[in-house]
Amino acid sequence: MPRSGAEARRRLQQAALELYRERGFDRTTTAEIAARAGVNERTFFRHFPDKREVLFDGESHLRASLTQAVAEAPDGLQPLDLLLFAFRKVEHILEDNRPFAEPRLRVIAATPALRERDLAKTAAITETVAEALRQRGVADRQAGLAAHVGWAAFHHAAQAWIDDPAQSLDAHLLRAFDDLRALCLTTPAGDRSR
Amino acid sequence: MPRSGAEARRRLQQAALELYRERGFDRTTTAEIAARAGVNERTFFRHFPDKREVLFDGESHLRASLTQAVAEAPDGLQPLDLLLFAFRKVEHILEDNRPFAEPRLRVIAATPALRERDLAKTAAITETVAEALRQRGVADRQAGLAAHVGWAAFHHAAQAWIDDPAQSLDAHLLRAFDDLRALCLTTPAGDRSR
Repeated sequence: MPRSGAEARRRLQQAALELYRERGFDRTTTAEIAARAGVNERTFFRHFPDKREVLFDGESHLRASLTQAVAEAPDGLQPLDLLLFAFRKVEHILEDNRPFAEPRLRVIAATPALRERDLAKTAAITETVAEALRQRGVADRQAGLAAHVGWAAFHHAAQAWIDDPAQSLDAHLLRAFDDLRALCLTTPAGDRSR
Repeated sequence: MPRSGAEARRRLQQAALELYRERGFDRTTTAEIAARAGVNERTFFRHFPDKREVLFDGESHLRASLTQAVAEAPDGLQPLDLLLFAFRKVEHILEDNRPFAEPRLRVIAATPALRERDLAKTAAITETVAEALRQRGVADRQAGLAAHVGWAAFHHAAQAWIDDPAQSLDAHLLRAFDDLRALCLTTPAGDRSR
């Protein structure tokens, strides 16, 4: 039996990830996850409300860290630069945890029930980031759009980093923001008639 | 009893939307939706697999129309302009259906189970749009990012249009893309040290 609550929690996450990979999310029960982690099922439910949440433990930490990073960013940055600063501050959370992060992202991508939960978490983070931008004086309309667009670039970078671990997440992140700027820059004002 | 299948379908959608607004999604049963629509429950399940899908009927039509619009866009457009062209081609789908679209968006925003489904549909549309961009010769890496970013602007415009119906969806869409360009333009290359 694991000694501490934190240790049990970590073992439950690892056991769930292994089982989801081996036999799929739908065919795994909470009892099986608990058994592999060496705890009983009641302990599972003391830590997680359901089979999905066990893979989303880091989300609240990421969200809090991002909010703090936006709040602490230097003055005078434009919204996207402010977000790039914040993403670079928190990228170590993913990098420190790559052995878990990589299979986790693959299992989520392959499992509709987990994808839905992941998308809901993402939407919640995006709203939090938008609110943090507003606190920094970014106009209401611009804050929501900037949060969505910035998150799209961050997500893009994380996916590229999973596919190509030869480069750091930071390098992928800088490239994603460069791609984003290029995408907008190459768009001429042009003729808008239909 | 409604005469045709299409009429029954439309009545089921209207009945579901009304009931979700009146008593909430969770407290509404498929039997109640069928009763209000004047059909039996078997008819409900002939049209929709579950209580959530009844509000997402237009998604496949929107997705097909967007794909076609991207395919038919003039040559020589940059990715974001190509997307703006495509969104303008399909915006009438939302505008023609505002009496349904508006309460639908409000119910979705207020119901976690519907939000998750909505986010999953959005992710599927974004992937389809990215694929359509690749078919038009947009580079793989750029296509995914452009689809996400373009969709963020479209979603932003649709939300603004719901909140402010005094302006057309088209006007909101043009403004969202202007905001998007401004967001990137005001971002200087700057110092990237941490």
